[in-house]
Amino acid sequence: MTVLNGNAVVGQSGGPTAAINATLAGVISGALKAKEIGKIYGMRNGIEGLLEERLIELDGIFSDKSKLKTLMTTPAAALGSCRKKLPEKNDYSYAAVFDKIIKVFRKYDIKYFFYIGGNDSMDTVKKLSEYTDECGYEMRVVGVPKTIDNDIIGTDHTPGYGCAAKYIATTMQEILYDTDVYTTKAVTVVELMGRDTGWLTAASALGRICGGKSPDLVYLPERVFSMENFFHDIVTVFSRKPNAVVAVSEGLRFEDGRYVGEGAQSGNVDAFGHRALSGTGKSLEIALRERFGCKARSVELNLPQRCASHLLSACDINESFGVGNAAVSAALQGVSREMMVILRDGEDDGEYSSLFGHMDIELIANKTKYVPDNFINQQGNNVTDKCLEYILPLVNGEIYPAYKKGMPEYFTFDM
Amino acid sequence: MTVLNGNAVVGQSGGPTAAINATLAGVISGALKAKEIGKIYGMRNGIEGLLEERLIELDGIFSDKSKLKTLMTTPAAALGSCRKKLPEKNDYSYAAVFDKIIKVFRKYDIKYFFYIGGNDSMDTVKKLSEYTDECGYEMRVVGVPKTIDNDIIGTDHTPGYGCAAKYIATTMQEILYDTDVYTTKAVTVVELMGRDTGWLTAASALGRICGGKSPDLVYLPERVFSMENFFHDIVTVFSRKPNAVVAVSEGLRFEDGRYVGEGAQSGNVDAFGHRALSGTGKSLEIALRERFGCKARSVELNLPQRCASHLLSACDINESFGVGNAAVSAALQGVSREMMVILRDGEDDGEYSSLFGHMDIELIANKTKYVPDNFINQQGNNVTDKCLEYILPLVNGEIYPAYKKGMPEYFTFDM
Repeated sequence: MTVLNGNAVVGQSGGPTAAINATLAGVISGALKAKEIGKIYGMRNGIEGLLEERLIELDGIFSDKSKLKTLMTTPAAALGSCRKKLPEKNDYSYAAVFDKIIKVFRKYDIKYFFYIGGNDSMDTVKKLSEYTDECGYEMRVVGVPKTIDNDIIGTDHTPGYGCAAKYIATTMQEILYDTDVYTTKAVTVVELMGRDTGWLTAASALGRICGGKSPDLVYLPERVFSMENFFHDIVTVFSRKPNAVVAVSEGLRFEDGRYVGEGAQSGNVDAFGHRALSGTGKSLEIALRERFGCKARSVELNLPQRCASHLLSACDINESFGVGNAAVSAALQGVSREMMVILRDGEDDGEYSSLFGHMDIELIANKTKYVPDNFINQQGNNVTDKCLEYILPLVNGEIYPAYKKGMPEYFTFDM
Repeated sequence: MTVLNGNAVVGQSGGPTAAINATLAGVISGALKAKEIGKIYGMRNGIEGLLEERLIELDGIFSDKSKLKTLMTTPAAALGSCRKKLPEKNDYSYAAVFDKIIKVFRKYDIKYFFYIGGNDSMDTVKKLSEYTDECGYEMRVVGVPKTIDNDIIGTDHTPGYGCAAKYIATTMQEILYDTDVYTTKAVTVVELMGRDTGWLTAASALGRICGGKSPDLVYLPERVFSMENFFHDIVTVFSRKPNAVVAVSEGLRFEDGRYVGEGAQSGNVDAFGHRALSGTGKSLEIALRERFGCKARSVELNLPQRCASHLLSACDINESFGVGNAAVSAALQGVSREMMVILRDGEDDGEYSSLFGHMDIELIANKTKYVPDNFINQQGNNVTDKCLEYILPLVNGEIYPAYKKGMPEYFTFDM
């Protein structure tokens, strides 16, 4: 193990989660304790802020430990985020952008780079570590995963998923209780986030293995959606009860590849070329009203899925902090060009526990972890108990933010 | 005071709230203690279940006091609800319906009738007490208000409003933190419940008087909405910052009376003739994208506003229980044809406190309490501090449901 002395920089990237600030707190806490690390800087708005030298010194701010605690239950990305993609080798801006980054690193004597983000952000970690290796700038570059989508490979689950899953599972319980109060025939379609994977939608069924209620039908984007089968499934539910509740992923597609919500698509395309979807629930609501003539309603849980810090999974917040902390330890020990991962342990005695590890970023960046076949039932209209047993430990325990006069108190750098 | 011995019946009606079961717990708790009251029955699905003799004996179930406690933090209406309107005197079904009700009352020796509901449910209380008085059936009929809409006159505020206001204010804080992480130009429109009144939308601005963030613009249905003024307001926000967040009531209308969300209206009409609206936020999102060419997004908080029992206002839950309890005491003392009200007290020393009273149902039923003029700013694009100071004490304190293995535990009669 080579000792590398210098400063560190940490950034947040991609869509916020309710746990991404817990990971930031974990990195800061680890860096404050490390004798090899002098100062710890935060990039405002991720790599975008690094390029513009918008750096903020974190040591002084967080010498007050109570601020780290408040940061852990603060929603969104406290340092700000970005969706900037670093250029490819054959892009005209490649040399200019990476030169600028190295200049900033030299100016601030940055030897440790921690980037908290999802799939797209790991692309940044990969390119940056390739470049610094090639140009011989000695530093440690470590990615720390976060995404509510749980779609990063190599890790048992992603920090941020547990909080989103808990919010979705709890809110779905409430909606199931709410829609159950009337005796009239009705369908409620609940649309959940998930462009390519059904991890979040799967969490809506957690009540089934916990003595609670659960949606009658659950459709994930891992299966082709058929309107004919859907209507057939609804008829089957109506033969048992007047109220049907359906959970759907925003990214459901028909066999020809068209999105179910295409009619109501917003037309926005992000920097990574992903189309912003909206309207899968709304499209199905309209189709149901036409087909069955009954009351139909759609509910899109929307942004609160990723920012509802008023109901946090203790498992997720503790792991999110822990994996940030572990990233610093790993970097000090020489780890670079890697992403931190969470490994599930101790399943033998039935008690969930986890360990932190790390993995070559080449194996991870720009790949997607889908819900596996044995987590989806044969008809493709629900998830299996095996799937729910995988998710359940991740929502365990409750952490709440502090409230003053009835309103939540958060950390902000603008204070 | 005449002593009246007999049984009691309690029902829930209209849209659920996160606090309506706390009021049910208050009525049950009061009735269990009253020596004048023999049995306490629950109507399944309100007056609809009474007519069908779907009554459930509550004494045995709630002799276990821990069940009352669980009931208080259970979402939706545990007895079920209905939207049934009792017939008018000149309706052909008038005699048949009221005859049937009296027959059920005689059969079960019902002398006390408690109905927990909103504006429309108070119409049921009014008609029923008129009929029983006219036909000489001696009983006490008391309405207990509940509605997230806070639009019932005679009471300082309605049970259920505090929980919804707290959920909205907190979720809006989270959305404001979330939308603040990017540097790109964007507008987020958050659509809140409120067909005719802006009480819920007003609560979204609570952060302003608590050191938090607040939406840049707030539009209530008490003011005519003008697209021209709206665009002008947005330009003003953009001159200060790249991100605009706007809170709108679902019931916003243009000067000619058309709903802003008319384009996306669902076409459903309920038993009271109210049109089910949807799409005010969506309509504005589309208009903003066309006018400014920027990223625009709409978020409809939807059902969770009325059923999010995972974040409860302690003030509201305690008052909701208290007003149910007080309804029983009032009825025992001879009160009938009245609705319970909450009176605000102790404002002189700056500490909020409240008292329970009751008011002639004739003065209340089928009327609406609007947000007053001095609660809305002159431009009609925000609420005043006076408005927020009125709301703030109602969201004070937090009560959470119990969780087991990370999932909430609720009361259900199907247990």
